[in-house]
Amino acid sequence: MELLYILLVLLVLTRLGGEIAARLGQPTLVGELVAGIALGLVVAQSSGLFPVLADLPDNEVFLAITDLAIFFLMLFAGIELKPRELAEGSMTAFAVALGGFLVPLVSGFGFAWLFLPDSELKLVQALFVGTALAITAVPVAVKILIDLNQLDTRTGRTIVSAAIFDDVLSLVLLAVLLAVVRTGSFPGLADLLALGARILVFFAITIVLGLYLVPRLRPLLERAWVAEFELSAVLIMALAYAVLAEWLGLHFILGAFMAGLFFNRTTIDESRFEHVKTQVSGINSGFLGPVFFASIGLHLDLIALAQVPLFVVLLVLVAFGGKLLGAGGIAWGLGLGARGATALGIAMSGRGAVELIIADIALRGGVFSAPQPPPPVVENLYSAVVVVAVATTLLTPFLLRRALAGRGDDAPG
Amino acid sequence: MELLYILLVLLVLTRLGGEIAARLGQPTLVGELVAGIALGLVVAQSSGLFPVLADLPDNEVFLAITDLAIFFLMLFAGIELKPRELAEGSMTAFAVALGGFLVPLVSGFGFAWLFLPDSELKLVQALFVGTALAITAVPVAVKILIDLNQLDTRTGRTIVSAAIFDDVLSLVLLAVLLAVVRTGSFPGLADLLALGARILVFFAITIVLGLYLVPRLRPLLERAWVAEFELSAVLIMALAYAVLAEWLGLHFILGAFMAGLFFNRTTIDESRFEHVKTQVSGINSGFLGPVFFASIGLHLDLIALAQVPLFVVLLVLVAFGGKLLGAGGIAWGLGLGARGATALGIAMSGRGAVELIIADIALRGGVFSAPQPPPPVVENLYSAVVVVAVATTLLTPFLLRRALAGRGDDAPG
Repeated sequence: MELLYILLVLLVLTRLGGEIAARLGQPTLVGELVAGIALGLVVAQSSGLFPVLADLPDNEVFLAITDLAIFFLMLFAGIELKPRELAEGSMTAFAVALGGFLVPLVSGFGFAWLFLPDSELKLVQALFVGTALAITAVPVAVKILIDLNQLDTRTGRTIVSAAIFDDVLSLVLLAVLLAVVRTGSFPGLADLLALGARILVFFAITIVLGLYLVPRLRPLLERAWVAEFELSAVLIMALAYAVLAEWLGLHFILGAFMAGLFFNRTTIDESRFEHVKTQVSGINSGFLGPVFFASIGLHLDLIALAQVPLFVVLLVLVAFGGKLLGAGGIAWGLGLGARGATALGIAMSGRGAVELIIADIALRGGVFSAPQPPPPVVENLYSAVVVVAVATTLLTPFLLRRALAGRGDDAPG
Repeated sequence: MELLYILLVLLVLTRLGGEIAARLGQPTLVGELVAGIALGLVVAQSSGLFPVLADLPDNEVFLAITDLAIFFLMLFAGIELKPRELAEGSMTAFAVALGGFLVPLVSGFGFAWLFLPDSELKLVQALFVGTALAITAVPVAVKILIDLNQLDTRTGRTIVSAAIFDDVLSLVLLAVLLAVVRTGSFPGLADLLALGARILVFFAITIVLGLYLVPRLRPLLERAWVAEFELSAVLIMALAYAVLAEWLGLHFILGAFMAGLFFNRTTIDESRFEHVKTQVSGINSGFLGPVFFASIGLHLDLIALAQVPLFVVLLVLVAFGGKLLGAGGIAWGLGLGARGATALGIAMSGRGAVELIIADIALRGGVFSAPQPPPPVVENLYSAVVVVAVATTLLTPFLLRRALAGRGDDAPG
């Protein structure tokens, strides 16, 4: 069983890395990412010694395990948050998300337009860079907030709400990008409206079911005879929401999160809820989560950094600057103090897995196939975006800790 | 994400099936198997409507998930048992295992020899049937004992010990069968001795580490800073033991079980131990376990039953009779009362997943490729063995409950 060997290596390295990070006062996520990067470097140097680990990025089973990890991460994030408090700050969060989405999109697009050579794919390539920078990785933001014990604070909730809005916006843009890659032209108004309708349908169904149907199932849940029925119930709800999201052309992480949000202390009694929370927390923090963050580190290819160093470094700066100005600026304008606004801008900067998924879709869609022969900046565009994903994920907790240092739980806002 | 859809369907059906079984006074395992069989029948009738579910037996990701399910099932079984009590009855268990192994092996071989046509593969085919009948599915026996609340009783412990010995013997025989399939001749004495040495090495390493190294890690475990470190620790130990088993040419289930056995109340304090046990129990009973038992039901192909009904029915009878006479007979001879001995013989009859794995190896190894054209009994030999696996797994809990009815927890023995 190849998978058991993979899980053993990754679990040992990430827990060790996480423990070292924790003792150095850093979030465990940092140690897990570094463990993945270190493993990736060792394996790249001597892939003959570790054939299974060298093939990990193409291992279908391992990809499914990382998807399952994202599923549990989002489910746990939902379980830890309360829907009402998330809804309270939702107008602020929406404004922040919009700013944190549009500014990086436009600046990423403009930056790529300046650097990329003319070709029939230049527009798509620039749009790809813009999309990649506009993303906020909800799982990364959530994990960092959990590690820093800031998830259930006002700033934490605003960040998560904004990241989720940002995620929905990214999915709209991804659908547009996909249409451009596939058909060579921008989707029409009708297609965009259909996409918007699907998004509305998803939130309408999940919220209505979560508010009105799920609480009514409580007597059923509490009368079950089979063992561990509570965990099955939350998993069934999350899987159903995730499948609904996928079926509507959205990402499954939205479903897992919404299910966790509505499965709470009103669904089952306190002790059963704590029982389920313990189990999901174990799967998430003690098993699949570390494996997932190591897999992001494994993707790092430092060749891009060596071949087009200026482009990569500037891209990372634009990635941070765009979120800081866009999300942080709006937050500051809405009255969140300078420190809170900075923290918010930084927290929205982690891109992680979703950016890797988009880079992968672009690569398979042939976005980097022109001009021929490709100049270094086009040849390394995919790797550069991967570096941005890893660098933003790695630097965000460092910067966020610094930004949050010295402030109380709830800053004035 | 195809996997999420598969998990959703299987989890809903199995939990429903399990609940119905529980309310009818049956172990949940029965409901989970029946749910899998029902799904298999519906999908076979209309595979066009459920393409993903129709391809499930060939789905590499799903196979990995069922392997992970077996891993957690065995880990949980180990955690629930105490090594000392398991060792106490080990001479009885070994004798029972030997009887429950040799009698079905010989009777299966003889039965197949009578029914199968002459060909250059007749010897291998008869050996395959004998091996298939000699197996005891440890996960199935364990699940049934858990469902009947009989795992931690004297009979329960003897059954588990005997099943594990039987499993080791099966793995030896499987290695022999594999050698015959691959080379066309029986392995020599040197090969058999090497296999025996590997088995001894495995148990020596896992027992010595479990008794002397693991308790010394307790201070380290209790001082960890990262969240959910206890679960990671037991998983790392189980994964390491599983990888060791595979590396020595044995099955990973042995590693998962031995790790669970030695990770107990001496490894960490009571409250941490209960915390981990809750988490592994959740993954096992609330998530992966039901999915695994449904997957066994899914394998059922009733065409064999229609084409060679007498052969299949007799094979099921030989499968039960061999274990009852072999394991039950020895137990009775060793002074376990008639009721206890009957229960033991029945409990050893569940074959489940291991038999399916062996059938699959034989199929891929070309065991059924002669004579040409194949008569019905050879053409359906694979399916017949699958029917035996499902039938024994399904009937064992019914019969065992009846055998155990009315007797106290610990019968004289």
